[in-house]
Amino acid sequence: MASKVEPCPLPPVSCLLSPMPYTALKEACLAANLDLPKTGLVDLTFGNVSVADPARRVFAIKPSGVSYAELRSSHIVVLDYEGNQIEGELRPSSDTPTHRHLYLNFAGLGAVVHTHSRSAVAFAQAGRELPCLGTTHCDYFKGPVPLTRAMTAAEVAREYEWETGKVIVERFADLNPLEVPAVLVRNHGPFTWGASAAKAVETALALEIIADMAIKSLALNPAAPPAPEHLLAKHFCRKHGPGAYYGQSA
Amino acid sequence: MASKVEPCPLPPVSCLLSPMPYTALKEACLAANLDLPKTGLVDLTFGNVSVADPARRVFAIKPSGVSYAELRSSHIVVLDYEGNQIEGELRPSSDTPTHRHLYLNFAGLGAVVHTHSRSAVAFAQAGRELPCLGTTHCDYFKGPVPLTRAMTAAEVAREYEWETGKVIVERFADLNPLEVPAVLVRNHGPFTWGASAAKAVETALALEIIADMAIKSLALNPAAPPAPEHLLAKHFCRKHGPGAYYGQSA
Amino acid sequence: MASKVEPCPLPPVSCLLSPMPYTALKEACLAANLDLPKTGLVDLTFGNVSVADPARRVFAIKPSGVSYAELRSSHIVVLDYEGNQIEGELRPSSDTPTHRHLYLNFAGLGAVVHTHSRSAVAFAQAGRELPCLGTTHCDYFKGPVPLTRAMTAAEVAREYEWETGKVIVERFADLNPLEVPAVLVRNHGPFTWGASAAKAVETALALEIIADMAIKSLALNPAAPPAPEHLLAKHFCRKHGPGAYYGQSA
Amino acid sequence: MASKVEPCPLPPVSCLLSPMPYTALKEACLAANLDLPKTGLVDLTFGNVSVADPARRVFAIKPSGVSYAELRSSHIVVLDYEGNQIEGELRPSSDTPTHRHLYLNFAGLGAVVHTHSRSAVAFAQAGRELPCLGTTHCDYFKGPVPLTRAMTAAEVAREYEWETGKVIVERFADLNPLEVPAVLVRNHGPFTWGASAAKAVETALALEIIADMAIKSLALNPAAPPAPEHLLAKHFCRKHGPGAYYGQSA
Repeated sequence: MASKVEPCPLPPVSCLLSPMPYTALKEACLAANLDLPKTGLVDLTFGNVSVADPARRVFAIKPSGVSYAELRSSHIVVLDYEGNQIEGELRPSSDTPTHRHLYLNFAGLGAVVHTHSRSAVAFAQAGRELPCLGTTHCDYFKGPVPLTRAMTAAEVAREYEWETGKVIVERFADLNPLEVPAVLVRNHGPFTWGASAAKAVETALALEIIADMAIKSLALNPAAPPAPEHLLAKHFCRKHGPGAYYGQSA
Repeated sequence: MASKVEPCPLPPVSCLLSPMPYTALKEACLAANLDLPKTGLVDLTFGNVSVADPARRVFAIKPSGVSYAELRSSHIVVLDYEGNQIEGELRPSSDTPTHRHLYLNFAGLGAVVHTHSRSAVAFAQAGRELPCLGTTHCDYFKGPVPLTRAMTAAEVAREYEWETGKVIVERFADLNPLEVPAVLVRNHGPFTWGASAAKAVETALALEIIADMAIKSLALNPAAPPAPEHLLAKHFCRKHGPGAYYGQSA
Repeated sequence: MASKVEPCPLPPVSCLLSPMPYTALKEACLAANLDLPKTGLVDLTFGNVSVADPARRVFAIKPSGVSYAELRSSHIVVLDYEGNQIEGELRPSSDTPTHRHLYLNFAGLGAVVHTHSRSAVAFAQAGRELPCLGTTHCDYFKGPVPLTRAMTAAEVAREYEWETGKVIVERFADLNPLEVPAVLVRNHGPFTWGASAAKAVETALALEIIADMAIKSLALNPAAPPAPEHLLAKHFCRKHGPGAYYGQSA
Repeated sequence: MASKVEPCPLPPVSCLLSPMPYTALKEACLAANLDLPKTGLVDLTFGNVSVADPARRVFAIKPSGVSYAELRSSHIVVLDYEGNQIEGELRPSSDTPTHRHLYLNFAGLGAVVHTHSRSAVAFAQAGRELPCLGTTHCDYFKGPVPLTRAMTAAEVAREYEWETGKVIVERFADLNPLEVPAVLVRNHGPFTWGASAAKAVETALALEIIADMAIKSLALNPAAPPAPEHLLAKHFCRKHGPGAYYGQSA
C-alpha cells in the first residue's frame, strides 16, 4: 500500500549527524538505552539501542544481558560496520549483527532500537502486519508496518542474527525505510530506526501505542478498513518533507 | 437515539464566563494543556486544548509540536474567531481551524479538547459510534457519542483541519452539542468540549473511561443492548438541568 | 449454583462491631472513601463507601459530588436507618437510598461500597453475571457474582436509588449476602459489602481483579466452564467458617 | 512439543547453592516475597515464595495470610522436606504442601514461586496451555507452559494442596522441569521455580509478560501457529546450556 502513495521528498539525514568521538557516541547510546525502560516499552532486559556515526562507519551498542540498573557508559561496546569490536570489553548484544546489517543496507540511519514491546510483539506473533487504521499511524509511518517472512531452519542455524537483518532488508525491497521506519520480525518483535536515537526511541514508543490502538480497533471491528490513501498521504506529509506544517519551523 | 429523549433544559453558559485579559486566558490554556498528560490521556504530543472567551470572540491554543515539558504561558497563541493570530509568535496547533469552526458553530463553548486517547481512538478507527451501555455514560452524554462520516479526498486536500470541523458540525445537525459534548472523528480520534476548560478535560477523561468500559463490555457480549431510554434520561437529568440532584447546590 | 453448595457456617458479625460515636464513624467513613482512589478502582468521583453502626441503626456516607482531594471528615453525612439526616450539612451521596436499603435487608453489614470499576462494570453492561472460573474467585465469593434484572421505567421514574436497592435484595432471594458479598447492577456497576469497611473495600478490589481475569479467560475460551463445585466449596471454606485454615488463628 | 526438541545439557544446579544458616535462608525468603508485589504480579495477598537449601533438605516459606507490608524475617517459617516445622511460630502458607512436593520430586530446585498473576491465571481458567508463539517465550521455556488436568473431588477433599503438587508432577512425566520451569494449575494459577529465588521470581514475571503477549496475539489471530521448532531450540539454547552466547561469560 505504501508504494502507491506519492512520495514526499525527505531531507538528507547525513548532514544532521556531526562526527562524534567514541565517548560521546557511547554516552548517547547509554542515554538512549536508559530511556527504554522509562517508556515502559521494555520488560526485564528485552531491548537494546545502538547509535551510529555513519560518517566514520561505527556504531555503539548495549552489552548483552546487562541490566539497565547496572548499565554504565564504560559497558557500551563500539563496533565498526564490518563487525570488528573497537572499544569496550564486554560481549555486545546478541542482536548486534541485525543492527549492523541495517546500518549497511538502509542509508541514513543514526540509530536502531529493538524491543519486545507487548502489543507490537502481538502482531509479530499473530503473523499480521500492522495496518494503518488512523491518523496516529499516518503521522509516523507512510503505510502498514510490514512483517517479515518466516525464517528457514537453515537461516536460523547459520548466522541467525545476521540472517534476521537479511529478512528485514528483503522485506523492504519495495519500501523506503525512512518513510516506514519500523518492521515486525515474525515470531519475534519490532525493530525501529531513525536519524537520531531520540527519534528512533520515539518511533518505538509510537509503534507500541499504535499497535495497542489497533488491537482494540480490530476487537471492535475485525474488518476495520485502513485509513483512506488521501488521509494517509495528508498526515504523513503534514509532518514530513518540504510541505510539512506541523511543529515550528527550524 | 438521543433525539428521542425528552430534553432537560440546560442553563445558559455564556453567563458563566466573565471576560478575561489574554494573560489569564493564556494561563488557563497552559494549565489545561498541562492537565492532559497528567490524566494519562495523551501519549507523546498527541493532544491539545483551546480555551475561549466567547464575549470577546477570541481563543487561546497550544502551539504546534511543543512538548508538554517545555510548554510555557508565553508559548500559547491567541487567535480571534476569524482566525487572525493576535498574540504569540509560535505557529498554533495544526488543529486550530477545527477548534475555531467549533467555536463559531456551537454556541456556549468555553473550551475544546482534542486527544488521541487510545480507547476512544479505537472506536474512531473501528468506524463505530460509542454506544450508551450504562450509567457511567449516561452521566456525561445524553445518547451515543457520534462518529463523523469519512472525509472525501477533496475535503482532505483542501483546508483539511477546517473541513474536519465542518464534518463534526454536519454530524450534529440533529444533536445538541451541550447534551452530547463529544465526537469521534473517523480514522482519527475524539474531540470534547464544555463551558470551561476543566469541564472539557473532565469530559475527555470520562470519554476514555467509558470507551474502555465499552470495549470490555462488547468483548463479553458483542450484542450488548444500549441502556434503556428511561435510565439514560434519568441519569443525565439527575446531573444536568434544573431537576439535577447530584452534587451540592450552588 | 451457589445454593447447591453445602453451607459452611459463618460467625455472627454483630459482635465484631462495637458502637462508635459519630466522630469515629465519620472518620472510618472518610478513611474508607479515601482508600477507594488509592486502589485504582475509582475514576473521577465514581464511587462511595458507607460505614454503619448496626447497633445504633445509623450509617455514615460520602456527600454527593465532592472530590476525593477535598473530602474532609466534617463533610461526611450521618443518617439513621429510616433515612433521617442526623449529622452533616451537605447532601449525601445520591446513592444513599440504595445503601440504606441494603442495611435494612442484609443482616450484619458493617459497610457498603459502590464503584464503577471498569471490568466489573463491563459484566454489568454486557448483561452477564460474573462466573466463578477459578480459585481467586472461590476465595471471595461462594458462587457467581449475580446480576440484577433490568429495572422498569416505573421503577426508574419513582424512587430510583431506593428501587435499585430493591432489585438487589430481590436478586438475593435464594442467596446468602455474607457468602456472596457483591452484586452487579445491570447497566450500572458493582456494589460490595462486608462486616467492616476494610473488608468491603478489599472485596471491591478483589471483585475488579477477578472480573479482569474473567474477561481475559473468556477471550481465550468463550466456553470456559466454571470451576468444579468441590473446588469452589474447598476454597471458600478454607478461608471462611469454622473449618478455615487460611491465615493465622485469632 | 518440548519433548521433540533436542536437549541442550544444563549445568548441575546443586553446586550453585552453598548451605545457608536458617537466618540467611529466611532473609532470602523474605526478600523474594517482598519482590513479588514490586513486580506487579501479586494483588492483595495472592502469592508466596519459598526458598530451599537442598543440601540440608529444608525450605523457608511465607506465613499464611500475612500482608506484605507487615511481613518480617521472623515471620518466615522453616520446614524440612518431610514437612516438619523446624523454625517460626506462625502457620506456613496454605500452599506449603504443594511447594514441598515440588522440592521432593524436581531435582535441583532452589526456589518455588506461586502467584495469581492475571494473564497466566486467564490461561489456567480458560483450560488452555500457554503456547510458544515467539522468541520471548523461547528465551524462558523450551516449549509450551503445560496445564494440569482437573483434580477429582476426592483429590480436593483429601490433602488438597499436596494433591495439587501431585498433579503438577504427573504433568511433567515427559517434561524436564529445568527446561520448562513453570506450570499452570487448572482453575487456579501459575507456579514457577528455579535454581535461585531471583531466577524463580524472574521466571514468574516473564511468564506473566508472555501470557499477556499471547492473549493479545490470539485475539489478533485465534489460529496463530507456534513458533517453529528450530526457532524455539535456537533461542532456548542461546541462553541456556553449554552453547549459550547470550549475556557475559562468568
